[in-house]
Amino acid sequence: MALTKTPAFAPRGSKAELEAGLAFTPKFDADGLIPAIVSDMHSGEALMFAFMNAEALALTIETGVVHFWSRSRAALWKKGGESGNVFNVVEMRADCDQDVLWLRVAVEGDGHACHTGRRSCFYRLVPVPGEAGAATHLVLAPDADDTP
Amino acid sequence: MALTKTPAFAPRGSKAELEAGLAFTPKFDADGLIPAIVSDMHSGEALMFAFMNAEALALTIETGVVHFWSRSRAALWKKGGESGNVFNVVEMRADCDQDVLWLRVAVEGDGHACHTGRRSCFYRLVPVPGEAGAATHLVLAPDADDTP
Repeated sequence: MALTKTPAFAPRGSKAELEAGLAFTPKFDADGLIPAIVSDMHSGEALMFAFMNAEALALTIETGVVHFWSRSRAALWKKGGESGNVFNVVEMRADCDQDVLWLRVAVEGDGHACHTGRRSCFYRLVPVPGEAGAATHLVLAPDADDTP
Repeated sequence: MALTKTPAFAPRGSKAELEAGLAFTPKFDADGLIPAIVSDMHSGEALMFAFMNAEALALTIETGVVHFWSRSRAALWKKGGESGNVFNVVEMRADCDQDVLWLRVAVEGDGHACHTGRRSCFYRLVPVPGEAGAATHLVLAPDADDTP
């Protein structure tokens, strides 16, 4: 599904309007993208992080199904379109300066949000406090599910 | 506090190493920054989203206190250094391709993470499903606290 014409979002306002207003004026970067944080509606854990262009954002709002812009494929990307792990939006929020989105979702299919086959993309810990630099080693999170 | 010399993180490996390995090889973008999602350790709600450069990341790992790079001020930024709302890291994770970080934190001071004085930067809802474009209007979230 694609929109025949992507609706234009409202232009950015003053700092006060961005922060205190109710006009939705998302900030797209030089590449036309806005970052989106996706959390699980039940556990609250972060599942993934990706980018939307105006078309992906409009489709997400209109359909309630999460769409991204794939930077690697340079294409509109309905999340889960191939895997079946579709993200249904339970709630979407914008941050204070409207340059990032946060979505709480219900994951369809087998519930695995990550392309590696795991429930979440965030399956490894960075030990903190710890040694920083080339000596930093990740640790598999206790709650990480196995790779399929 | 600043490091006299920022330790260099390990260079990026192959896709398999990035995804399945335990070497921490964070991806910094063309501006030398990596995005960081910050969630509340208790509620799981997203509190804010900001960027770290290598020095801010190293300081965060070594001290357990969140540091960012302020793009607007072009300066190292100890979160809460002025407001008292310091973020103590409870857990830090990297995502599958190690180009975004997720931190669970305990907020010191009055617990307000947002510079507007609210607990979270995500205090407004984007109604979904809804009309997309200039007609999209935000709604104050029921759990949003008042502006001070």
